[in-house]
Amino acid sequence: MAKLGMGVVGVGTMGRQHAQNIRRLTPQAQLLAIADVALKRAQQVASELEIEHAYNNVEALVERRDIQAVVVATPAKFHGATMRVCAQAGKDIFCEKPFTLTIEEADELLEVIGRAGVRVQVGHVRRYDPPNVNAKKRIEAGEIGDPVIFKSLARDPAPPPVSYMASGVNGMFFQDSTVHEFDLGRWLMNDEIAEIHAYGGVLVFPEIAQFNDIDSALVNMKFSRGTLGAVENYMQSGYGYDVRTEIVGSKGTIITGYLQRTAEVVLTATGAKTDVVDHFLVRFADGYLNEMCDFVQTILADRQPNVDAFDGRQAVAVAAAAERSYREERVVTVANRARSSRAA
Amino acid sequence: MAKLGMGVVGVGTMGRQHAQNIRRLTPQAQLLAIADVALKRAQQVASELEIEHAYNNVEALVERRDIQAVVVATPAKFHGATMRVCAQAGKDIFCEKPFTLTIEEADELLEVIGRAGVRVQVGHVRRYDPPNVNAKKRIEAGEIGDPVIFKSLARDPAPPPVSYMASGVNGMFFQDSTVHEFDLGRWLMNDEIAEIHAYGGVLVFPEIAQFNDIDSALVNMKFSRGTLGAVENYMQSGYGYDVRTEIVGSKGTIITGYLQRTAEVVLTATGAKTDVVDHFLVRFADGYLNEMCDFVQTILADRQPNVDAFDGRQAVAVAAAAERSYREERVVTVANRARSSRAA
Amino acid sequence: MAKLGMGVVGVGTMGRQHAQNIRRLTPQAQLLAIADVALKRAQQVASELEIEHAYNNVEALVERRDIQAVVVATPAKFHGATMRVCAQAGKDIFCEKPFTLTIEEADELLEVIGRAGVRVQVGHVRRYDPPNVNAKKRIEAGEIGDPVIFKSLARDPAPPPVSYMASGVNGMFFQDSTVHEFDLGRWLMNDEIAEIHAYGGVLVFPEIAQFNDIDSALVNMKFSRGTLGAVENYMQSGYGYDVRTEIVGSKGTIITGYLQRTAEVVLTATGAKTDVVDHFLVRFADGYLNEMCDFVQTILADRQPNVDAFDGRQAVAVAAAAERSYREERVVTVANRARSSRAA
Amino acid sequence: MAKLGMGVVGVGTMGRQHAQNIRRLTPQAQLLAIADVALKRAQQVASELEIEHAYNNVEALVERRDIQAVVVATPAKFHGATMRVCAQAGKDIFCEKPFTLTIEEADELLEVIGRAGVRVQVGHVRRYDPPNVNAKKRIEAGEIGDPVIFKSLARDPAPPPVSYMASGVNGMFFQDSTVHEFDLGRWLMNDEIAEIHAYGGVLVFPEIAQFNDIDSALVNMKFSRGTLGAVENYMQSGYGYDVRTEIVGSKGTIITGYLQRTAEVVLTATGAKTDVVDHFLVRFADGYLNEMCDFVQTILADRQPNVDAFDGRQAVAVAAAAERSYREERVVTVANRARSSRAA
Repeated sequence: MAKLGMGVVGVGTMGRQHAQNIRRLTPQAQLLAIADVALKRAQQVASELEIEHAYNNVEALVERRDIQAVVVATPAKFHGATMRVCAQAGKDIFCEKPFTLTIEEADELLEVIGRAGVRVQVGHVRRYDPPNVNAKKRIEAGEIGDPVIFKSLARDPAPPPVSYMASGVNGMFFQDSTVHEFDLGRWLMNDEIAEIHAYGGVLVFPEIAQFNDIDSALVNMKFSRGTLGAVENYMQSGYGYDVRTEIVGSKGTIITGYLQRTAEVVLTATGAKTDVVDHFLVRFADGYLNEMCDFVQTILADRQPNVDAFDGRQAVAVAAAAERSYREERVVTVANRARSSRAA
Repeated sequence: MAKLGMGVVGVGTMGRQHAQNIRRLTPQAQLLAIADVALKRAQQVASELEIEHAYNNVEALVERRDIQAVVVATPAKFHGATMRVCAQAGKDIFCEKPFTLTIEEADELLEVIGRAGVRVQVGHVRRYDPPNVNAKKRIEAGEIGDPVIFKSLARDPAPPPVSYMASGVNGMFFQDSTVHEFDLGRWLMNDEIAEIHAYGGVLVFPEIAQFNDIDSALVNMKFSRGTLGAVENYMQSGYGYDVRTEIVGSKGTIITGYLQRTAEVVLTATGAKTDVVDHFLVRFADGYLNEMCDFVQTILADRQPNVDAFDGRQAVAVAAAAERSYREERVVTVANRARSSRAA
Repeated sequence: MAKLGMGVVGVGTMGRQHAQNIRRLTPQAQLLAIADVALKRAQQVASELEIEHAYNNVEALVERRDIQAVVVATPAKFHGATMRVCAQAGKDIFCEKPFTLTIEEADELLEVIGRAGVRVQVGHVRRYDPPNVNAKKRIEAGEIGDPVIFKSLARDPAPPPVSYMASGVNGMFFQDSTVHEFDLGRWLMNDEIAEIHAYGGVLVFPEIAQFNDIDSALVNMKFSRGTLGAVENYMQSGYGYDVRTEIVGSKGTIITGYLQRTAEVVLTATGAKTDVVDHFLVRFADGYLNEMCDFVQTILADRQPNVDAFDGRQAVAVAAAAERSYREERVVTVANRARSSRAA
Repeated sequence: MAKLGMGVVGVGTMGRQHAQNIRRLTPQAQLLAIADVALKRAQQVASELEIEHAYNNVEALVERRDIQAVVVATPAKFHGATMRVCAQAGKDIFCEKPFTLTIEEADELLEVIGRAGVRVQVGHVRRYDPPNVNAKKRIEAGEIGDPVIFKSLARDPAPPPVSYMASGVNGMFFQDSTVHEFDLGRWLMNDEIAEIHAYGGVLVFPEIAQFNDIDSALVNMKFSRGTLGAVENYMQSGYGYDVRTEIVGSKGTIITGYLQRTAEVVLTATGAKTDVVDHFLVRFADGYLNEMCDFVQTILADRQPNVDAFDGRQAVAVAAAAERSYREERVVTVANRARSSRAA
């Protein structure tokens, strides 16, 4: 049986998670090397996971003949440059979301990827969350009739460190965070988001204003076939990491997501208490494993990725429209493009 | 349309609740009089509910020609004497549980009732709790295959006042409280409880020992057709009033009961919180109304009550067996009798 | 103790419900008369509830000296005319929502009411739903920090009969239905809704298009102090009556509402099943009783109503803005006015 | 850092699961070899997990100097013989539950283990289930006051294949299955089970009678300090794998366990539906990983195991008492022994 040789570029929180998951995909995949601009961090993760090779640049990693596929988990601003190197070296790519921070870069990359003929999967992990996977199947089976309203909310427990905002490598709230829900809406409704109205605000984290960013967003959406959507994104829930989605149809509704982490209820004089999911790595633990498993199987089977670069590009376009709507205080049309046969 | 003239004897917590419910059964029923040994209490409840007549003895109440049915909600020790008066006056009776405190008195009463030819319904309210009603229908419809295990738990928030225990008018824990679950088991399993093993203990409320009573009980039961049952009863949950039941079948299980009172979830840094049902009048609000409604319709329609004196007597017998098992530390056979055609 | 003499005008679903609830408010209130343009219906409800007097017009009802307060539960289009008659007769008024169908009529009525010096409570029942009541208290106690996002959804099980739409007496979706959520948002956020963006659609009930109405709405809102809100309203859930609300704060979130009606879980090979609330009279049974109880106590105590005509007027203004936003496909400013000392 | 060389003996469902989990314990542990009487199966699992060595007997495996610890996951009947070989070779042992099938063998093994001076951990996985872990901590912190009633239920979705029963290598229902709950009760109540009353029955799976076994059990228990317990064990839930536990205290209750597998609720005209956990590997996925992690850390740190051979022996004694109670239809005292300083 074929075994996919893999490398991971960027081992912050997400890159490290992907690296651990690849190690569980035995015997289909083998993680051969790790690269990070911080060589020490690359070496440390390599040591913990018993990976032989560690580099401080992607160029060195892609020189390895035994590596066929690369996971790109750098900050978003460097996704483009890193993917170029990988694509030119003929490597298939798993890229963390967002695909890019701008539509322009996304379109250029589609060209590069198309010319190089490599496969690209974008890490829109919500599509691999088991309840969402089930929801998609039920919708396609007609269990809720015609899906007509898509709703989703995503709340982080607390804002990221100010240094994260200040680094300028991750994009605005819409591009960095809400983009997850935009992709999920496209997928579950099987339609493009055509039009957007977004409210945003600096409601709880005043430090964010200096970065021209927001901590709260409510987005109203119209899909191209006339159905509707609404997304909430919030930076400081105060209680945990909370992502819930509803797909409302003409004959029923599906709700996905959960609040309780541990299956324990404590009953005392103050009432009933449970804990709450506290981190996205907990909430989407299965999703992260499943998406990597799907990527490995896709590449080994020489198939087209289920969430490809075009999907990545469209989600970036929705995020851009949301930002413009917020800034210009008006309804904005999304700069969608048609899927070309060549673009990955 | 006929209208049932009614009286209530004993307006403590339960009698008062029944009186209020009767007032909602317009236009089928009319509450005409209230009796209580404490005349002042009778008068006060009558005034609040706009009932014309208040008495301090049952004899005066049953003399009224316009009263056809009487609700007996005195302390349990006086159920027998009160029902005798009512039966001899030819009144139909709704009697709070337990039917009596001893098997002997129950058997005597069956005779009295049978001779008088009056109808008696016993207040085993769990049978009128909507989830239990649904469960019964599902079992009969075969939704869970053959029911093979009956389980139920009942927890009070806190022990009653010591004066309640000291009054000696309410019976031991098994007779006063667990009797609810015994009746429910008989009904849902459609079978008699044949054999009992009971553990009991003074585990949290030492004051109860002086009354030769217990605060905790675990009862293992075998039904006459070989299926099994387990009941927990506990006097001091510390969090609320909690009654939950499971009927386990060869193809599925039904769980009834609930913890949360108010449909509100509070999410903060300490987790997710809800409140808990705090009182049996809350937990069984629908049940109490439904059982009285059924009683009124039963009498107006000249039908046999759905929970009759014989049912009351059998539950008393199970409670007696549980007490004996606890005291003698051994398995005990229940002194069941067959339903006679004459006994109500 | 004073007893409030009351009448009910209009005994469709809601009027009948209010009449039943008044009967439970013994001994504070007494329902003396019912009026309905359909005299037969008035007489039937009077007979069932044992009310002595039935009329086919409001004028006759308000002539009664023993009636001090009137419940107006006619179709919305007739709220204004009916309230005028009541106000001119010096009766205090409980008016079903919506207060009126237009801002103009609302403003005129505020004048009439103010001049007549009568008290008016508007039936925005969500404010009396126990979980919402608790939520309000918690927000005021600071349990979730600063409330910054208000979200609510309301789904009807199925569209009303076409005759209901065709009657032209109930207003558009925003005025007739979404108005509930608008009032709730004002109350929970303790702020006015300043600006609106609404998407609407005929997505599942094509018959509604002929009435120039919609079956689905998503509304984005900005409150006057900069916080945000989002409301969904949908006419055909296919599964039940579903109203859920979230108030998101800087330190936590409160979720109110529930799906399950009966406390029964059925576990079989097809999974776990529960039923779902099927009707607003079930979902808001407590709310309807509580609001009437509050009205009676308010009038008896000679206090200002907790949800008054001004509140009714502001909610009407938000609904009007939502409709305009939908029709003109743009963000719309709400025509709020300041609470005058005299109005309401 | 030290790395623990490990082997697994017996790669049926559980052995395979343990092997996969060991592979995730990088870099603390390394799985070096697998043994199974079916060499082909050993080789296949070794190949899938990229383990170098496969054997068809435990003797060959324990000859390896690089293996310091062995996981014994053979059928229960062979636990004793396998552990003897491992102990005599000086290997530390992780043994699947039940420790043994009889008290006699358990006592002999305690001797062998004590003499060999090896460490033994028994796979009572419920102790490593996160909600149970939390529950234990809360009890110790006094959150529910004094724990006074222990309750647990365990339902398998369907009976095992008849061949499993017929093999005679796994013990009766009490020894093979209920033993889990007995250990959990000992641990959570921090007490020995002193006395037992057990009902059992062949209620749904008649084929089991030929093996002198049962498919249903209800066990009433008294702990040595007078607190109480009740356990249900059932072989054919028809809906899934269901394990739930309650610890009832003088000030509150903790409930652990869950029914829903996927965080998806489907709302249609037939109500609300969720799926249900279908397998113990799903229900206790975290538990199995956690117990192996604890074992590795325990051995590397040269500590006493948290669930040791003595614990295993006591649970076996409770199971034996339950069986005797069932067969002799009477209350039975458990043959507990005191923990000796030498016994592991």
